[in-house]
Amino acid sequence: MNVHSAGDRPIATPPPNDKRRRILDAAVQVFAQHGFFHARVTDIAREAGVADGTIYLYFKNKDDLLISLFEDRMEGIIAAFRAELSRLEGAAERLDKFVEMHLGMVEREPQLAEVLTVELRQSSKFMREYKAPRFQEYLDILAEIFELGRRTGEFRPDLEPRILKRIVFGALDEVSLVWSSTRRDKYALADAAREIRNLCVRGLMASAAHETAQQGDRP
Amino acid sequence: MNVHSAGDRPIATPPPNDKRRRILDAAVQVFAQHGFFHARVTDIAREAGVADGTIYLYFKNKDDLLISLFEDRMEGIIAAFRAELSRLEGAAERLDKFVEMHLGMVEREPQLAEVLTVELRQSSKFMREYKAPRFQEYLDILAEIFELGRRTGEFRPDLEPRILKRIVFGALDEVSLVWSSTRRDKYALADAAREIRNLCVRGLMASAAHETAQQGDRP
Repeated sequence: MNVHSAGDRPIATPPPNDKRRRILDAAVQVFAQHGFFHARVTDIAREAGVADGTIYLYFKNKDDLLISLFEDRMEGIIAAFRAELSRLEGAAERLDKFVEMHLGMVEREPQLAEVLTVELRQSSKFMREYKAPRFQEYLDILAEIFELGRRTGEFRPDLEPRILKRIVFGALDEVSLVWSSTRRDKYALADAAREIRNLCVRGLMASAAHETAQQGDRP
Repeated sequence: MNVHSAGDRPIATPPPNDKRRRILDAAVQVFAQHGFFHARVTDIAREAGVADGTIYLYFKNKDDLLISLFEDRMEGIIAAFRAELSRLEGAAERLDKFVEMHLGMVEREPQLAEVLTVELRQSSKFMREYKAPRFQEYLDILAEIFELGRRTGEFRPDLEPRILKRIVFGALDEVSLVWSSTRRDKYALADAAREIRNLCVRGLMASAAHETAQQGDRP
């Protein structure tokens, strides 16, 4: 059995919702190893050390399990990001920290990263029907950083937070995907973090705005 | 029947490889409409106006059809991009044009964009086994732009083309994905193009390098 962080908790008489937790932890392993489509509920039950039927007490089906896993993990990630960012004053500092934390998480928890970047997209239910409120919340942390910088004059006034949050997330997600899927040998995530931070901080600073003002006016 | 661009060609006695073309055109429609996993070879055959068995004369299976479709479309896209970019001198101009062409293609061919951004990721064969040489070639067009700018001194000397190509592609892909999947009402692609171009051009210009030189030294 390979239950993530099980070593931190007493296993003898688990509280009722500890089973839910064990199933979610097992699902990360199984989805990352076999892929969402080939993963079987039976494999997840075996990994979690529960009967197959137990899984259906907590989750309707495999798609529901994937979505619940996503919501559960994002809840923890959002809380950790907000706590860390609230200690920093400036927008550029916060953006720096966001990039560092996002890629740090990918590096520390590659299986979770694999599920979030690759496997989620294999669920057509997730991609097509599910609104992913926690994902929107995660993106909004980024949007708030851009709004802060625009308000304080640290960043240029013409930036659009609702588009920029997608641009920065897309960049982070792509370098994470490459890093995960090439078995981490293509480049160090620290190099990617530096490139993204350089591009964003230089690209957003108010002081550089005059240089390419004409660019902003093009259709 | 809704064969893409069929109106341009005589249909009476199609040349032998015209069937392959009709099947590929039909596959774009069917994959975009039903999703890769739910699309059936039978549906593609009906859309293309050929017998089911004919498809297997050209393609081994549905995954092979998707990969062939990808290679075929990318070949045309790469040639068009190279021709257009070769007319421009500067790296910033070329980067501008690349962003404009990428998002312009998404806007003009939303079904093809849906297949390239969403459905390709639904094929685990594509994601896990296939090296996608044409996709690498597409990314290399971006890398060459960064190398050009670095060489001529237009862009800052510390940039890393192999990471930047992923960052810029990730940003383009994410805004395309949002635009496609929200039925194009979230924002205009022209606004996204402007944000990406502003961010990149300002973020890469050599003249802004002194301002945040310390950022580049961080781990």
